[in-house]
Amino acid sequence: MTTIDRLQTPALLVEQSALRENLRLMSAALPGPRLRPHVKAHKSTALAKLQAAAGHHHFTCATIREVEGMAAAGLGADLLLANEVLDATRLGLVVTSGARVTVAVDSAETIDAASAGGVREVVVDVNVGLPRCGCAPEDAGRIADLARAAGLQVRGVMGYEGHVVAVPDVDARRSGTEECMQRLLTAHSLVGGDIVSAGGTGTYAVNTWANEIQAGSYVLMDTAYGALPDLPFAAALSVLATVISTTAPAGEIPGWAVVDVGLKSLGMDHGNPTIPGGTVWFCSDEHTTWQPDDFGSVRVGDRVRVLPAHVDPTVALHERMYVVDGDDVVVDTLPVDLRGW
Amino acid sequence: MTTIDRLQTPALLVEQSALRENLRLMSAALPGPRLRPHVKAHKSTALAKLQAAAGHHHFTCATIREVEGMAAAGLGADLLLANEVLDATRLGLVVTSGARVTVAVDSAETIDAASAGGVREVVVDVNVGLPRCGCAPEDAGRIADLARAAGLQVRGVMGYEGHVVAVPDVDARRSGTEECMQRLLTAHSLVGGDIVSAGGTGTYAVNTWANEIQAGSYVLMDTAYGALPDLPFAAALSVLATVISTTAPAGEIPGWAVVDVGLKSLGMDHGNPTIPGGTVWFCSDEHTTWQPDDFGSVRVGDRVRVLPAHVDPTVALHERMYVVDGDDVVVDTLPVDLRGW
Repeated sequence: MTTIDRLQTPALLVEQSALRENLRLMSAALPGPRLRPHVKAHKSTALAKLQAAAGHHHFTCATIREVEGMAAAGLGADLLLANEVLDATRLGLVVTSGARVTVAVDSAETIDAASAGGVREVVVDVNVGLPRCGCAPEDAGRIADLARAAGLQVRGVMGYEGHVVAVPDVDARRSGTEECMQRLLTAHSLVGGDIVSAGGTGTYAVNTWANEIQAGSYVLMDTAYGALPDLPFAAALSVLATVISTTAPAGEIPGWAVVDVGLKSLGMDHGNPTIPGGTVWFCSDEHTTWQPDDFGSVRVGDRVRVLPAHVDPTVALHERMYVVDGDDVVVDTLPVDLRGW
Repeated sequence: MTTIDRLQTPALLVEQSALRENLRLMSAALPGPRLRPHVKAHKSTALAKLQAAAGHHHFTCATIREVEGMAAAGLGADLLLANEVLDATRLGLVVTSGARVTVAVDSAETIDAASAGGVREVVVDVNVGLPRCGCAPEDAGRIADLARAAGLQVRGVMGYEGHVVAVPDVDARRSGTEECMQRLLTAHSLVGGDIVSAGGTGTYAVNTWANEIQAGSYVLMDTAYGALPDLPFAAALSVLATVISTTAPAGEIPGWAVVDVGLKSLGMDHGNPTIPGGTVWFCSDEHTTWQPDDFGSVRVGDRVRVLPAHVDPTVALHERMYVVDGDDVVVDTLPVDLRGW
């Protein structure tokens, strides 16, 4: 039995109780195939197996590597690569291995790639307002026809309302989502098929138009989604750090401490991490300098939990997650085995 | 013979000519042990071997894993872990294996850790103005005495002027560096030893007070350091991307394109990447949305080179770098084998 005192830092920790509660809340709200968990948030087949145990057997992936790893782990019942690819050769090999793989298409080129690579099923990716991938809603029927003409089965549509998932006011988030989903439903009427896939953790409860939600962050959470007061999910993820240096207050300058968790062990695109009981000043490659509220209570060698601002890229920097219980006992290790491309 | 057209994207590219020229320029300016290359910038023993071939056999590391990997690759002649650690057990094993390992200390606790772990040599880390690790200059003698009392050999001092390495004006950078280095020399007079280690790519030419410079970024460079007009080093690193989607201009809205390089394949702490010939709008996990200057010239399937804002954390996200020549032929593959902790 290992406690976190024995872990080398930086170490990614997942609180078991929060993880379980997040899984429970989401599977109660969106049971079974109503949720298509996005594995990009955790990049771990071991964690995906917990989602499968909670009733979700259809998964969303962002990369070919994620599709390959999920299939190899026996989680290939229905894998949606919610992204465009121009070389689907590796996806075709996954299909040959017996997994079900569906890929997003939004152009003649991506349809050709899917067909040439040996993928048999697609969804039409629709631009619902986020300026990223996806065809115009009114063009979705043409894309579907192109796909069918290339011998592909068209399972439906997807469209991600990524620009509204973090709108603070839940009513504004709902009305923004509705506007996006009207575009997706317009496209669906032109495309057909069973799938209307959309959504994320921020809109899982308000997106009542899609028939499956691609939420991923809910299971671990981060400080960005944690700022939405209506979300019931608890922060499960932290990065365990060791205090490696302290500098006492001197005149006007407050005392500070340094931990061995820096921007190479934290996703930084949403800004600096949070350290409870202190104020973060800045991050370097392998350091975070912060000002403890009570300088005298911090000693070199102390362990501190650093809360990343964005969970997805944080997890992708680590080789494994340690699941810990309330007594700081490490009860499980989840390899982060879906990294890379 | 593989060309970059055959690479799966995202793929980290290193331009051979720029790499060679950067190595040549630096070894001419700071020959042999005057440079202690920082391997955190590239995390690759293969690239470190190119630095050794250029005459530099003493290296700087930021993590225990980097020390272990360098020693295992036969590059352990003189490894400085320029960082504090509270558990030096693994470092002691590297010493036992025959490599020379020196670790930074700035407190009784880090001295105890070095001694208990089996490390025999240390430098005193001095706060020269950057609020991070390091003791006060006037306290450096006491730290050195503590280390010697613990049976450790004190090789000298180090102190990183990280807050001035990116000052745009070179004269202001030099005078800022001088101020920092006076603190370091004060500490050195109290500590003794042969080593006065400091500096980075931004101050490699103006820091004439330290007797060894810990520059790392020079070898690959990034857009942040590239903004300093006096630095002679060329941008060698880019992330090869594929255009996976385009959306044509519509009324007031300009056309945009999306590549498959996003914030999981880019260090984001210095902000968005640059795409020559276009303007980056935003990055998602596996996408960057950008506006080409000439929309009509961009096609789905095109290859694009994305320039990261910060090289160090970008490299740490990838498994390997591809060295390419002027004809886009892949002439070498450099594993990024020093990742993790």
